[in-house]
Amino acid sequence: MENGNGFKRWGFQKKQQDVTKAAILTPRLASYMLMDNLNRDDPRPVVSLGNGDPTLFQCFRTAAAAEDAVLDAFRSANYHSYSPPLGILPARRAIADHLNRDLPYKLSPDDVYVTIGCAQAITVTLEAIASPTANILLPRPGYLGYEAFAAHRQIEVRHYELLPEKGWDVDLDAVQVLADENTVAIVIINPGSPCGNVFSYEHLKKIAETARELGILVIADEVYGHISFGSTTFVPMGVFASIVPVLTLGSLSKRWTVPGWRLGWIAKNDPNGILKETGIVDSITTVLNVSCEPVTFIQGAIPQIIENTKEDFFMNIIGILREDADICYNGIKEIPCMSCPSKPEGGMFSMVKLDPSMLEGINDDLEFCIKLAREESVVVIPGVAVGMKDWLRVNFACEPASLQVGLERMKAFCRRHAKNKNEDPSEVIQTGNCSNTAGCPET
Amino acid sequence: MENGNGFKRWGFQKKQQDVTKAAILTPRLASYMLMDNLNRDDPRPVVSLGNGDPTLFQCFRTAAAAEDAVLDAFRSANYHSYSPPLGILPARRAIADHLNRDLPYKLSPDDVYVTIGCAQAITVTLEAIASPTANILLPRPGYLGYEAFAAHRQIEVRHYELLPEKGWDVDLDAVQVLADENTVAIVIINPGSPCGNVFSYEHLKKIAETARELGILVIADEVYGHISFGSTTFVPMGVFASIVPVLTLGSLSKRWTVPGWRLGWIAKNDPNGILKETGIVDSITTVLNVSCEPVTFIQGAIPQIIENTKEDFFMNIIGILREDADICYNGIKEIPCMSCPSKPEGGMFSMVKLDPSMLEGINDDLEFCIKLAREESVVVIPGVAVGMKDWLRVNFACEPASLQVGLERMKAFCRRHAKNKNEDPSEVIQTGNCSNTAGCPET
Ligand SMILES: Cc1ncc(COP(=O)(O)O)c(C=O)c1O
Ligand SMILES: Cc1ncc(COP(=O)(O)O)c(C=O)c1O
Repeated sequence: MENGNGFKRWGFQKKQQDVTKAAILTPRLASYMLMDNLNRDDPRPVVSLGNGDPTLFQCFRTAAAAEDAVLDAFRSANYHSYSPPLGILPARRAIADHLNRDLPYKLSPDDVYVTIGCAQAITVTLEAIASPTANILLPRPGYLGYEAFAAHRQIEVRHYELLPEKGWDVDLDAVQVLADENTVAIVIINPGSPCGNVFSYEHLKKIAETARELGILVIADEVYGHISFGSTTFVPMGVFASIVPVLTLGSLSKRWTVPGWRLGWIAKNDPNGILKETGIVDSITTVLNVSCEPVTFIQGAIPQIIENTKEDFFMNIIGILREDADICYNGIKEIPCMSCPSKPEGGMFSMVKLDPSMLEGINDDLEFCIKLAREESVVVIPGVAVGMKDWLRVNFACEPASLQVGLERMKAFCRRHAKNKNEDPSEVIQTGNCSNTAGCPET
Repeated sequence: MENGNGFKRWGFQKKQQDVTKAAILTPRLASYMLMDNLNRDDPRPVVSLGNGDPTLFQCFRTAAAAEDAVLDAFRSANYHSYSPPLGILPARRAIADHLNRDLPYKLSPDDVYVTIGCAQAITVTLEAIASPTANILLPRPGYLGYEAFAAHRQIEVRHYELLPEKGWDVDLDAVQVLADENTVAIVIINPGSPCGNVFSYEHLKKIAETARELGILVIADEVYGHISFGSTTFVPMGVFASIVPVLTLGSLSKRWTVPGWRLGWIAKNDPNGILKETGIVDSITTVLNVSCEPVTFIQGAIPQIIENTKEDFFMNIIGILREDADICYNGIKEIPCMSCPSKPEGGMFSMVKLDPSMLEGINDDLEFCIKLAREESVVVIPGVAVGMKDWLRVNFACEPASLQVGLERMKAFCRRHAKNKNEDPSEVIQTGNCSNTAGCPET
């Protein structure tokens, strides 16, 4: 145990398996990787249809009322101290009231835990329900934050499919087969990420009934809650909590377009007290007691943020996203090697099927995205990063003009790499990078 | 597996051992418990000498420059988006530069990870070095955030003693005996929490040499860095990083008195590249990739906070704390059943030895604190919550007048509960609660 110098060897050497166990390609990691592949000589602005970051665009700037609320709370100097582990009471109460507008029973402040964005709501919830034998059901495609954290904590996950041909509804028959005695929860994401779908009231009810039958709880990720602009109205899963206990996860990040504020929540929808009885409530509290809290003054701003943000603000954002969804859906239609099973009705992403067999020298979604980034300065997330090989995840929450530019570059890219170009009479053969070609809409 | 209604039983029932495994009495939990014991009929203001929260006092209000920095970053609207997992570059650079002022070599921005307060710096670091067989050395008394998190993650801890008779220096001989092949790190807290001591240059060097000999890394919790007001100058542990790799944990919470901003860091002091070689750096990155990030706009404010906060602000705080330390030390001297081994030279806490045998009907520190809260509306943390039975942890970071009031009430309480009252000629027998007695200094 001594090395050459008479000293002990370092005792903290990491074993390989310890270090690599959580190396899952999440959309975030994929997007960093793609950014590294951008061609810095391309004078065109980068179009990011990768990770959702509407804050890059002026049209998505958050409500002035929300900004004022934070400024007021900050300037009051009443919120510079530590927060209690479950969040400050006025914030918990305001979030409860906010959620109560859509519920057939009433949440109390005690039913709400304030978290560091929906991201921490996810990690706290998974940790609270985990045990060495437990497994959880996750959607595919989904949000790989769940998979990455589960892998890190060695929580077993099982994937159920969302069905593109059925508007991305849950394959409930498959869920029945997948679940066993050790299944503790099913995660649903509604409005959907990354599919842009919105579950109907009837479908949500069926999910609740299936979960009840299986004796598992529902984790409802509603980080995109109320962001719906199609024919299906958003219904919170908590509506069905008398059938099955529901933990609703949410945040300000998407609806108020302020992901950097890191403010989210877990709401316990459990009129029958089952989560308390089964120890889940204590378990959540235990995890929160050894976790970090969101910034106190942002918590202090929540009552005012919720009260003062006008419907106008939300309607404006919804209007832009509806326009974006149209642009995206129509733009994809014009690209032969791509198809979109349904027009997005909510959220900020769309799943697009890629047919690499129609492309020369591009074998899969990942290769497609790397070359697209390099040649067209467009970032799109490969389907593998959301669990679906040979699909693409397109973020459409952009300034509409920018989205249009991104889609046109994708189209040009696909043309340039198309097999059998001569079969398409509309084809204009371009060999070089579009960036130096006069007539490109964005130069 | 079916219950009476033809449904499966709930599959997510928690086992008792899962829920209670982390029920350690931390100072925070102790303080909530004591608050619940306050007598609401006592008209006197509560004096909290419990958890350190200087933000309650106007005299500790943070620097205007720091507040302006946050306001500027917020209003710029450049920081409402997600932060990268390791923190934004300008923040990492500013923290590196800040730490470099006191180091014999230079940290680069890559050596710094921005965290959600020092609290997250602790959890990330412990998780990054943990393995099923590893153990870590923690000080007693110490900061039970470490113990609580280690228990939660089932990381083995071993306690080394701080020696009250040697100004709370580390018992290095004991450390040698305690460490074994599975020991990976020693945690030191300097300036000390809860002892209010400051380690000398020579002692820190000995700690580094001991760690080198044992082949373990040093985790230097410097959350109270630079908060020293006695004869010993604060020296960052990173100064000795050429002897042994050091992970320095820090935050804005104490020095800028803004714990609610949740902004801290991990700095990798490792000029010989040992942490990289041994996989610790990758392990930290892996943990951060599945963790939450601090609020982006507060990160964005860091360069300006550090650059614009004037020395005056720090000197003023130090001056108040020096006065507080004097008041505390002298006040304790006057209470027969208490003693303080040395006057605090740094930090915000002092450890006070309690002799329950001199008190009637009070058997230990916990009972003392509960009764004190109930009868005198003074909150002091029992030693058990920092690992030392029959001691008290006194937070002296208060407005001096308020500290004085708290000490006087403690004195009155001890007199009232003293055994053999007649032996003390100065004793004025009080049977009731002081609150209704004319002449109490604070009413
Ligand atoms: C489905 C889903 N859940 C959770 C999150 C994390 O949200 P937050 O920014 O509130 O942490 C995201 C972020 O994109 C998401 O898409
Ligand atoms: C020794 C020690 N480390 C860490 C912390 C946590 O600091 P922060 O507020 O930066 O999370 C504290 C808080 O009191 C502390 O005393």
